[in-house]
Amino acid sequence: MLLNCMRVINLTSAIQLKVLFTAQVSQQIHQLHNVGVTANLNLSCVNYIFPSPSMVKGNHHESMGLHFAMFLPTLYSQCDPQQSRKWIPLAESFQAVGTYAQTEMGHGTHLRGLETTATYDPATQEFVLNSPTVSSIKWWPGGLGKTSNHAIVLAQLYTQGNFHGLHAFIVPIRDMDTHVPLPGIVVGDIGPKFGFSEVDNGYLKLENVRIPRDNMLMKYAKVEPDGTYLKPPSAKLTYGTMVFIRSMIVGESARALSKSCTIAIRYSSVRHQSEIRPGEPEPQILDYQTQQYKLFPLLAMAYAFTFVGQYMSQTYHRISGDINQGDFSELPELHALSAGLKAFTTWATNSAIEVCRMSCGGHGYSRSSALPDIYVNFTPTCTYEGENTVMMLQTARFLVKSYRQAKAGQQLSGIVSYLNEPKHQRIQPQPVAARPTVVDINDLASLVEVYKQRAATLVDLAAKSIQQELQLRKSQEDAWNNSAVDLVRATDAHCHYVVVKLFTDKLGEVGDTAIHSVMSTLALLYALNGIKNNSGDFLQAGLLNVPQVLQVSIRVKDLLSQLRPNAVALVDAFDHHDKKLNSVLGRYDGNVYENLFEWARRSPLNATEVHESFHKYLKPLRSKL
Amino acid sequence: MLLNCMRVINLTSAIQLKVLFTAQVSQQIHQLHNVGVTANLNLSCVNYIFPSPSMVKGNHHESMGLHFAMFLPTLYSQCDPQQSRKWIPLAESFQAVGTYAQTEMGHGTHLRGLETTATYDPATQEFVLNSPTVSSIKWWPGGLGKTSNHAIVLAQLYTQGNFHGLHAFIVPIRDMDTHVPLPGIVVGDIGPKFGFSEVDNGYLKLENVRIPRDNMLMKYAKVEPDGTYLKPPSAKLTYGTMVFIRSMIVGESARALSKSCTIAIRYSSVRHQSEIRPGEPEPQILDYQTQQYKLFPLLAMAYAFTFVGQYMSQTYHRISGDINQGDFSELPELHALSAGLKAFTTWATNSAIEVCRMSCGGHGYSRSSALPDIYVNFTPTCTYEGENTVMMLQTARFLVKSYRQAKAGQQLSGIVSYLNEPKHQRIQPQPVAARPTVVDINDLASLVEVYKQRAATLVDLAAKSIQQELQLRKSQEDAWNNSAVDLVRATDAHCHYVVVKLFTDKLGEVGDTAIHSVMSTLALLYALNGIKNNSGDFLQAGLLNVPQVLQVSIRVKDLLSQLRPNAVALVDAFDHHDKKLNSVLGRYDGNVYENLFEWARRSPLNATEVHESFHKYLKPLRSKL
Repeated sequence: MLLNCMRVINLTSAIQLKVLFTAQVSQQIHQLHNVGVTANLNLSCVNYIFPSPSMVKGNHHESMGLHFAMFLPTLYSQCDPQQSRKWIPLAESFQAVGTYAQTEMGHGTHLRGLETTATYDPATQEFVLNSPTVSSIKWWPGGLGKTSNHAIVLAQLYTQGNFHGLHAFIVPIRDMDTHVPLPGIVVGDIGPKFGFSEVDNGYLKLENVRIPRDNMLMKYAKVEPDGTYLKPPSAKLTYGTMVFIRSMIVGESARALSKSCTIAIRYSSVRHQSEIRPGEPEPQILDYQTQQYKLFPLLAMAYAFTFVGQYMSQTYHRISGDINQGDFSELPELHALSAGLKAFTTWATNSAIEVCRMSCGGHGYSRSSALPDIYVNFTPTCTYEGENTVMMLQTARFLVKSYRQAKAGQQLSGIVSYLNEPKHQRIQPQPVAARPTVVDINDLASLVEVYKQRAATLVDLAAKSIQQELQLRKSQEDAWNNSAVDLVRATDAHCHYVVVKLFTDKLGEVGDTAIHSVMSTLALLYALNGIKNNSGDFLQAGLLNVPQVLQVSIRVKDLLSQLRPNAVALVDAFDHHDKKLNSVLGRYDGNVYENLFEWARRSPLNATEVHESFHKYLKPLRSKL
Repeated sequence: MLLNCMRVINLTSAIQLKVLFTAQVSQQIHQLHNVGVTANLNLSCVNYIFPSPSMVKGNHHESMGLHFAMFLPTLYSQCDPQQSRKWIPLAESFQAVGTYAQTEMGHGTHLRGLETTATYDPATQEFVLNSPTVSSIKWWPGGLGKTSNHAIVLAQLYTQGNFHGLHAFIVPIRDMDTHVPLPGIVVGDIGPKFGFSEVDNGYLKLENVRIPRDNMLMKYAKVEPDGTYLKPPSAKLTYGTMVFIRSMIVGESARALSKSCTIAIRYSSVRHQSEIRPGEPEPQILDYQTQQYKLFPLLAMAYAFTFVGQYMSQTYHRISGDINQGDFSELPELHALSAGLKAFTTWATNSAIEVCRMSCGGHGYSRSSALPDIYVNFTPTCTYEGENTVMMLQTARFLVKSYRQAKAGQQLSGIVSYLNEPKHQRIQPQPVAARPTVVDINDLASLVEVYKQRAATLVDLAAKSIQQELQLRKSQEDAWNNSAVDLVRATDAHCHYVVVKLFTDKLGEVGDTAIHSVMSTLALLYALNGIKNNSGDFLQAGLLNVPQVLQVSIRVKDLLSQLRPNAVALVDAFDHHDKKLNSVLGRYDGNVYENLFEWARRSPLNATEVHESFHKYLKPLRSKL
């Protein structure tokens, strides 16, 4: 009955919709199996603070998560044959339990700033590792505190008096038999965090720790016994892995968001509250326009990000063949795209999870909803693998470079080809409604065009800000910093354009009429709601006029009621099974209240009827009065 | 040295600035003492899920928090003299440990929907209390699960076959000597939550629980021995308390936000990272424009909300005298204002805390930063004491009512008097730049005016949406629901106007020139950044033209660098002492890294060098392979 109450007027079958995701699922499985064997990519320059969720086998919620997600893959990909023979059997048999220690207390995203040193001593053929300052103490790696007996340590290499930048070293940190820390090793847990209470994120201070020469991972760069340094064949090897991981995070955003939407939308069709019409029974809260307005744009976003995630991983796999052949030509564009989209999608998802949680009222605060856990597990993606603002500025650098190339007469190709077009000088103040307007707000192709023009306009605005700063005799660097707010805004508009474009492109692949129809509604909602929330940009650039912006607001409301009957089917189609979703509020059968009560009764505090605190605290307190 | 490095170019002394807050502090102390004795207000209709933080003495992080925050105050204010003599000594001596059980599994904000019943039985002169459905089980009250032996239960009263709505009853739930649950009582903990792990939020199911007639709190409404019901002298008594508590939450927003800004801004002057100019030392991250753009508008908001909080509590106290005399004339406006501002400030603060947390990079995720705790403790304010969207719509109801009164020729006074003005028919599509523009974006009075006009425009738009729906033959109720998105937007604009206005008004009280100057900069940043983020509204209504909006963006960047030298002094002025702030990142002395290491070393997991999991799990795992 409850199930019917949620699903009674579904025009679209969730089963039909699932077809859309089938390709993605097999693609993901393919990727997961591939991580360990992308042998020509090394992991030494991966920005991370926590391990990336669900990247490989193993689970980052476990203290041994990084053993599977980072330690083993790094050994697979960066050992030379002799090292492989030694270390891989030790790691696979858990004699060596390892983690990956890159981030330090004082430095995260800015890798060049890492301070840990590895100085080669040819006399003993050893590296001497040191944490020269408090801020150089390795900080955050999962499983480092208590679990691991080895760590792959990223350190600045010095040999023969020369500096060669970051390299990876296998450092034994605890005795493999007794698990006691080795001499010179100060290791421990960094203390309680926002979530992740099951993981012993740790610190590591190295005090003249000596390791044999062949503990440096030597598949690419090498240090010979006399201390001669041999550089790796290509510096770009590290680059591909970053792109890969950031591309994967876009898919993570889609998964976290689609889970949150599933919970909030199912619960909103089970929860009845207050009244719309006096005297009638309490309506499902999903019938309130405000609830629809909170959730349906996020549902549309979840679909959008799913398709963008698919695109990113397909594109990565398409060009990774070229990378294997040493052809890096497409990598800069993909690098820029993955950096910006990583930030764009994780920020949006981060806020969206909390909107979903709060849309469930009080019960959203209970861990039975699963939403608090989804949030604390997801939110680190905004910081790890490259802090989001830094990522936005990396993409901005590519955009400004492309813009300047276009200005200099070069013909751009790929996703930034819109910068070739001369129209983006429209930011000159002009009466908004005075311009001829050809935009059809019901036509996705037309909306893709206005998003594109908005991006062009904002890249232009940012580039002009830099120019103006330079004219004030500022240095290039200060001009860049004084325009950073505009640059982030330009990247945001660029990413927004890419997402709207990819969502629209995806519709071309949908043959089924009913699915095409509901997907078009979602895409339209995504695009129009984005215009509504950023209407100033579109008005300012003269891309839309005032009556059109008013129409957009009205149209968004229409689309909400249009989506209402399909909302539950649309989240069912994400196919998050109850066991994986692990949410009482988001149960497929809608039987929330009975199960909430059952869940509560199993609370650890209910193990005894009278809690020990009664005897321990309340009774003594009374007797003192 | 670190301290100097943060505070070297302060033009404004934090000590001078503190003067601004002195009035507030004494005001707050005054309020806290008053809660227990605002004798003519009862607490029976307070919407809550968790206890409101730091409202009275006691701390909501403790399981006995509600004993102090709700149980005792309710006894003080709602017992008749005979009841006072019995219950207050029991509660003050902790023989009776109590909580306040209103919210049910199925209903929170919508009080009329609560299902618990109290039916009077004149034969035994008892009330019989029941939880007739699963959804009627009391859910969430702090300390209910394990700590309390009494609960004030809100239940729908039936006597002599008639229904009289919600009333409060003292229900014994556990034996006062053995602490074992009494017959008919099913009580326990509701399980893990987002934060608040120290509190046993509980459930309570009542199965034909009989309590004596005089366990109904009878200061106002009464049930006589034969079952005759005597209604309370005024239904508005409950109304004042809601207004009071919501007004207090505005101040809570300011406190949580000012704490978060203190931590993030101090840490941003200690943290050095990356480079702006090549070859130079790593700059303080507060020198990055993007970091300033994240934090300084929030700093301005923290000041704004502080002043709004002061205003709300002053206004409440001003008119509570009138309320005591039975004059409720100003209450509807204050009610509307407190509902809207409660939602407006808590939503904004909720997002802002997370921006502050993420602006601290990886260390923001550590509980040593205090930011995760500030967030989980604050976020429930968006839901308790009235769910925010419901609150926004309550204010919208007042705005639309006032709008209609003005349309009907009535002269409005107070904060909505702007609806009298005829200008707000400007939403007709017109060329934006074609209108004469008299706004000075550097003049706060002028900006208050445009915020006012924006509010008027959006109230007008929402009212017209309702009108259009009615013309489509929709019922009043459906027309309201189909315009709810516009109504929330109108309330948002109204609240934004109020905040800008109150911040500007406050400047008039500041005599010191230096303080006046820096406060004006903050107020200007608050106002202009709000325009920047909502530029579509201002363009659409023809209040600003395109060149002005471009100027606003540039001016916001100017203000960021203008505030930079004073930023640390401005957070110092909030005067959050290290002990209260409890944040390693936000320490007054800036000595972050050493103390982060010290904090980590005290992590519970570091109590033993080799954790038991080594013997318990890793060794057996190895031996199995």
